[in-house]
Amino acid sequence: MVSFESDYICGAHPEVLRRLTETNLEPMPGYGADAWCEAAKEKIRKACELESAEVEFLVGGTQANAVIISTMLADYEGVIAAKTGHISAHEAGAIEFTGHEVLELPQENGKIRAEDLAGYLADYEADENHEHMTRPGMVYLSYPTEYGTLYTKAELEAVSGVCREYGISLFIDGARLGYGLMSPAADLTLAEMARLCDVFYIGGTKVGALCGEAAVFTRGGRPKHFLTSVKRRGALLAKGRLLGVQFDALFTDDLYFRISRHAIDMAERMKDIFRRAGLTFALESPTNQQFILLDHEEMKKLAGKVRFSFWEKADENRSVVRFATSWSTTEEDLAALEAALSGREN
Amino acid sequence: MVSFESDYICGAHPEVLRRLTETNLEPMPGYGADAWCEAAKEKIRKACELESAEVEFLVGGTQANAVIISTMLADYEGVIAAKTGHISAHEAGAIEFTGHEVLELPQENGKIRAEDLAGYLADYEADENHEHMTRPGMVYLSYPTEYGTLYTKAELEAVSGVCREYGISLFIDGARLGYGLMSPAADLTLAEMARLCDVFYIGGTKVGALCGEAAVFTRGGRPKHFLTSVKRRGALLAKGRLLGVQFDALFTDDLYFRISRHAIDMAERMKDIFRRAGLTFALESPTNQQFILLDHEEMKKLAGKVRFSFWEKADENRSVVRFATSWSTTEEDLAALEAALSGREN
Amino acid sequence: MVSFESDYICGAHPEVLRRLTETNLEPMPGYGADAWCEAAKEKIRKACELESAEVEFLVGGTQANAVIISTMLADYEGVIAAKTGHISAHEAGAIEFTGHEVLELPQENGKIRAEDLAGYLADYEADENHEHMTRPGMVYLSYPTEYGTLYTKAELEAVSGVCREYGISLFIDGARLGYGLMSPAADLTLAEMARLCDVFYIGGTKVGALCGEAAVFTRGGRPKHFLTSVKRRGALLAKGRLLGVQFDALFTDDLYFRISRHAIDMAERMKDIFRRAGLTFALESPTNQQFILLDHEEMKKLAGKVRFSFWEKADENRSVVRFATSWSTTEEDLAALEAALSGREN
Amino acid sequence: MVSFESDYICGAHPEVLRRLTETNLEPMPGYGADAWCEAAKEKIRKACELESAEVEFLVGGTQANAVIISTMLADYEGVIAAKTGHISAHEAGAIEFTGHEVLELPQENGKIRAEDLAGYLADYEADENHEHMTRPGMVYLSYPTEYGTLYTKAELEAVSGVCREYGISLFIDGARLGYGLMSPAADLTLAEMARLCDVFYIGGTKVGALCGEAAVFTRGGRPKHFLTSVKRRGALLAKGRLLGVQFDALFTDDLYFRISRHAIDMAERMKDIFRRAGLTFALESPTNQQFILLDHEEMKKLAGKVRFSFWEKADENRSVVRFATSWSTTEEDLAALEAALSGREN
Repeated sequence: MVSFESDYICGAHPEVLRRLTETNLEPMPGYGADAWCEAAKEKIRKACELESAEVEFLVGGTQANAVIISTMLADYEGVIAAKTGHISAHEAGAIEFTGHEVLELPQENGKIRAEDLAGYLADYEADENHEHMTRPGMVYLSYPTEYGTLYTKAELEAVSGVCREYGISLFIDGARLGYGLMSPAADLTLAEMARLCDVFYIGGTKVGALCGEAAVFTRGGRPKHFLTSVKRRGALLAKGRLLGVQFDALFTDDLYFRISRHAIDMAERMKDIFRRAGLTFALESPTNQQFILLDHEEMKKLAGKVRFSFWEKADENRSVVRFATSWSTTEEDLAALEAALSGREN
Repeated sequence: MVSFESDYICGAHPEVLRRLTETNLEPMPGYGADAWCEAAKEKIRKACELESAEVEFLVGGTQANAVIISTMLADYEGVIAAKTGHISAHEAGAIEFTGHEVLELPQENGKIRAEDLAGYLADYEADENHEHMTRPGMVYLSYPTEYGTLYTKAELEAVSGVCREYGISLFIDGARLGYGLMSPAADLTLAEMARLCDVFYIGGTKVGALCGEAAVFTRGGRPKHFLTSVKRRGALLAKGRLLGVQFDALFTDDLYFRISRHAIDMAERMKDIFRRAGLTFALESPTNQQFILLDHEEMKKLAGKVRFSFWEKADENRSVVRFATSWSTTEEDLAALEAALSGREN
Repeated sequence: MVSFESDYICGAHPEVLRRLTETNLEPMPGYGADAWCEAAKEKIRKACELESAEVEFLVGGTQANAVIISTMLADYEGVIAAKTGHISAHEAGAIEFTGHEVLELPQENGKIRAEDLAGYLADYEADENHEHMTRPGMVYLSYPTEYGTLYTKAELEAVSGVCREYGISLFIDGARLGYGLMSPAADLTLAEMARLCDVFYIGGTKVGALCGEAAVFTRGGRPKHFLTSVKRRGALLAKGRLLGVQFDALFTDDLYFRISRHAIDMAERMKDIFRRAGLTFALESPTNQQFILLDHEEMKKLAGKVRFSFWEKADENRSVVRFATSWSTTEEDLAALEAALSGREN
Repeated sequence: MVSFESDYICGAHPEVLRRLTETNLEPMPGYGADAWCEAAKEKIRKACELESAEVEFLVGGTQANAVIISTMLADYEGVIAAKTGHISAHEAGAIEFTGHEVLELPQENGKIRAEDLAGYLADYEADENHEHMTRPGMVYLSYPTEYGTLYTKAELEAVSGVCREYGISLFIDGARLGYGLMSPAADLTLAEMARLCDVFYIGGTKVGALCGEAAVFTRGGRPKHFLTSVKRRGALLAKGRLLGVQFDALFTDDLYFRISRHAIDMAERMKDIFRRAGLTFALESPTNQQFILLDHEEMKKLAGKVRFSFWEKADENRSVVRFATSWSTTEEDLAALEAALSGREN
């Protein structure tokens, strides 16, 4: 059955797999000390137009979030995030497992607003008892968000400005970064984004790799003895090459961006199919994840023809479901989707 | 200056101190293995009308919350609490320090509602991805709440019923328990409350003791090797007698309840003073903590005459401040307060 | 330069990579819910002759150790290990990061002795203050050990017997399991080993996979809601297929054992080369890791010709270095080693 | 029955209790912001001859150890301690609960040696794989040790010198500090000790207080936002006055030192009693804890007449038991002990 269940339904982009195959029997040192990791880091620094950035590879998104947040926060600090942020809602308490609190802000379509953030921080500072409260030490946001939406450049600048005013760091979860930057709705570049935050990661798992996320510390903020901290969190890969080779492939000849763009093109066409089929969008998403409202009967019926994923309950009768395109989405997939939907009213 | 800053501004109730003095040079074994701890536990079991209850002493409220919650939850579980719950807002992330997430529910005047709880749990169960989320394993509520309000017996029965339906435990933070149970607005007894929950604690620090909280496991749920778990959290007092003697005193001849009642009487009279002075109550509290709205100028002026505490910002111009009575509040204190307020309009 | 630096210097065994390539574009559900994971688990259960075993995949060795140990221990428990055990010495405190203590036992050539274990447990039980000590809840050992040595079946039975007598679990770190079981010195089978412990893992990273360890809970002891616990430790792979496909390949037609045997054959021949070159073995290892004593000058000279790894200081003048064979070691590698060594005296 | 079970068998020194009683009804702010805490801190700074020292009060010894160590260490660091150190052996994994490893050194009569420490640190630095190991960030030692022994000034200078050479901090657990400094065997003063370390604490629980330990950061190293970190560890006392008043009393007119000296005098006389009774000392202790070897029959018999505590198994037939004097030991206690022992041979 055709699947739009997620953007990680397939293995690696063929070009990535080809590179893994080519380098497979080259002996290399472990733990990321190999030449491919070095080469990939250099390509990423170039892509970010930040020669001084520090790049580190991690295996998955939740792991990257937990490692980055817990090594950058001080003991007494927590991280601010949207109530719908991945770290707030869908990581089973991975941040709390490291001993830190997630301080939730209200959100709209997955985005926090600079004014809410500023208000939160001002209230914290003004509270005479704030030493009895978790100190906010970082802001976490996702680009694109968990609802596929994008911060505009102005919005991100505003959030970044508040962070710098209060001396706290800004961390951008880029698990689907390519699908954000390649959206026609995006009004900022990778280099611009890098300059607005203190750390972000470039998602590989959802954009062409078998696994892997590239954390970029943009302003010299990589925690000291980072390898030791990664190791003790069980996040250090013996065959670090697996990450280095993949990211080297992804950042050769703009592969990462080309395949991201493909997913966006497919998403745009998928949206047309949904519109033609008269489906109701739960919200307007300009990226690869599309959220549709279905009543329970429709949902059940459609689930027999195409794979998608349950997102959340909308009301008594309806749920939000998600359809995701990715680098691996094909013309045939879209055709099968259209066929499944066309039979919808019959 | 007269102080209503908190309900822990004085030392111990004189009777408690007398008992500490009397027993001071009796040699006793450490770590709570002394006869006074045993006697106090027995008196507490009697007061709860629960001969099978397990009673354990801890030093302070945040510590009691963290120890109880973290030893009763499974690794993958979090605790549900009101967004304004003490563990959510004012313990600097003490629960998260133990690795567990606080799952926040909306509240009204500090109270959660059984229907919100049921909705949360039903949504969790229905969510197809819930294995990627923190599993709710316990409900935390405060009696009285952080806003001085009280759950009615019916409300507590409803919350308890939802917990039992879903097989999760109910924990009542009784840091100010006496001030709740002795309020004329209270419609339930200690014994009734004990039967509705799985664990609660009887606050000593705020009700007559120098320090100390008595945790009561009502239904055989004391975690195994509890002493070891208490020890490794740095919460085991070498001179456990300090807690045993004090609780023995507090539960002799109903001292705990008599002094709680005194604080409530004082609070009722304080409310009259506030009403006469034309102050605005932020909310209706039937217990020893009273919350008043003051604009910043009034606040500053009053702060020169009487001690109270800042609670939270209400709006641009006004703050909520707290006045607390306690077992130690005197007629003279109230007279001084009235005098301070009577000069208010001059 | 030819490398014996570790047993993870190359990518995946070609057959494993072939299977990843073949299945690369099959759409599958995430997080290990795919059919390849299921098939691999079934093959592993068969290989263990334990149809009721529960199998779970994790990404790396330190991660597997930390996840398994911390989810199986109770709050107040620690894990007993040899002072030289990987979790004691070379995981940067990964077990402590989860809040648990590693209780160290003396060792000989990497192995603990059943009598030392029994003595430790008897002393713990007899100590009147043992509630103030970490309770031993599990024994950890490595097969083969960090020094390449093997427990005999009798030794393992003895350790297992002590564990069962004291009601604590036995966990075997099998990061290099194949290289142990396929050694001519091994006198027990996978199925026999599985029956002697409560949980172990079959190392993939060092035996033919890009990454991946298969945890086997042999006696129904998989912790409840294990997926949630794995997720919150950042150890859940979105593309669980990466592990499922690789282990399916490794457990098809005994590939895992055949390539392990190859590494052992290569190690035996490497030992002959060392003997012919007059090198001094630091200890007798019957598996794929060989430990050689070199003085600092020899070490430096040899390091210019062949890659190996520093292990530990032996005395003022000498160090122990490690040479490892693996599934990827070739005839050419051995020839290059011999050439490098033959020029040793010149 | 007369008790030498520990040095915390009685309540507070009468003078300390008198001061608690006198100040009992003074209203004060909470959480250590009261004037008595300030006064006590000033007196402690004076006693240490370190006007710039930062003093913070904590409730108990294990708590003080865990709070100080875990707030001063970086994420990737562990603490070095003697294998017999309190944090290694008798705190139920309290350091590990905070996520940090205790790195054990060999010891003699409870003391580590500077050369062993230097060797450990040199080996760590020289190990090419040390980024995979817990980084040593602090040295912990007890003065007096868990066996009642004392470091000489020269020994402490040597340890301190190694710490400063390697840039790691030195922490002295002074749970029984008075009993060390007042021993005739002590060759250093409080002020000298303070200068040799980065942080230490002055034990109150075992030296005249109901509870309380005064942590002294001697060289500006108090962790930032320390109150928040203390709070989130459940270690912040609402009635901080309880600690401030007691330490103010203890550091008024040298009470702390006078009562410590009394305990030492009593211990010297107790040693004479033991010698006269022909008992065997397990080791030579110049402080208030005395360790005696008894065979199991003697132990049982004596336990019927006087309270002492089991320390550890010595061999198949004998145990080490501990007799402790304290500020509360009386002439009558010693007479009762002598009587109990004199009947020993009958």
